[in-house]
Amino acid sequence: MPAAEKTSGSRQRFLDAAVRLFARHSVAGTSLQMIGDELGVTKAAVHHHFRSRQELMAAVVAPLCVQLTATVDAAATLRTAHARAEHALTGFVDTVLTHRQLLPILNGDPGARELLISNPQVGDLTARLTALLAAVEPGPGGRIRADIVLSGLACAAGQNHDLDHTALRRHLLDAGRRTLGLRTPRTSTP
Amino acid sequence: MPAAEKTSGSRQRFLDAAVRLFARHSVAGTSLQMIGDELGVTKAAVHHHFRSRQELMAAVVAPLCVQLTATVDAAATLRTAHARAEHALTGFVDTVLTHRQLLPILNGDPGARELLISNPQVGDLTARLTALLAAVEPGPGGRIRADIVLSGLACAAGQNHDLDHTALRRHLLDAGRRTLGLRTPRTSTP
Repeated sequence: MPAAEKTSGSRQRFLDAAVRLFARHSVAGTSLQMIGDELGVTKAAVHHHFRSRQELMAAVVAPLCVQLTATVDAAATLRTAHARAEHALTGFVDTVLTHRQLLPILNGDPGARELLISNPQVGDLTARLTALLAAVEPGPGGRIRADIVLSGLACAAGQNHDLDHTALRRHLLDAGRRTLGLRTPRTSTP
Repeated sequence: MPAAEKTSGSRQRFLDAAVRLFARHSVAGTSLQMIGDELGVTKAAVHHHFRSRQELMAAVVAPLCVQLTATVDAAATLRTAHARAEHALTGFVDTVLTHRQLLPILNGDPGARELLISNPQVGDLTARLTALLAAVEPGPGGRIRADIVLSGLACAAGQNHDLDHTALRRHLLDAGRRTLGLRTPRTSTP
């Protein structure tokens, strides 16, 4: 295996271990030492990849940010508020399902929120996503419904492990549309 | 001040400090020592009231459990699934608003969830509440919508600090009813 590939492979192992430990002990309760212990390596080996918990957190959420940024950028080009919200909702549900293990942690863990708030890219992305969903009904009611959809869908996806991907995706989209007041698009199954 | 009242007063101070620290550092990231430091007392003084984080957590959620148990018990006596869900939703929203600072922590913090799961009363209460809301539409769709309402409303109430109690209550109830598929009752404002 070439050196670069080996390094990137172990980097991913560190990220996977971090997510497992975050889910078990929360972000604040997880140290770089614990990640080393989980993988049977020294804390120095973890430090080689991530100098701080902040840097580790940024690496954990990077793929999710890439996917959501693409969604928000594409939604913003559409003509009507309903079309923009529909595109943002669908992209958000697909992101939630891709990162099913991670989202409930990011959503509710105050330690994760603290680290994420200090990341301007994440704050900007959340604000843009909320605004796209909230615009279906301007005013505080629309904003509250956008908050409910973003946190509620992320938590529900983390809880309902017995449903397969297709069924869960359909139920999350149905519930999200209903909460926001979006019509079911003609192209999707009712 | 009588001795009993003084003791109960400082017990409440410990609980308030614990909630502030949970919100800042997560449950796993908060030690009994940190609660002592926050109040300028020794760890032994904290131990006098709570022998473990588990005992502290049970005391933190006790008033919330009393309020939700009363709601669920009263809802269960009603005749139709819609009336039971409407009563459970209203009682849940009022509980969320009473414990606005606490609910987002309980909802999303894995450390809090871990401590709560080991409390059979809390598990039973959550299951009964979810079942009452999910029964509006039997099947996985109804259960997912119940999960979205419970976690989404709790998170949204923790986020929208600029709205007054009456407006927030109305928006949360409206969104909850819409997500679950409940009609707005004739007695409440549209």
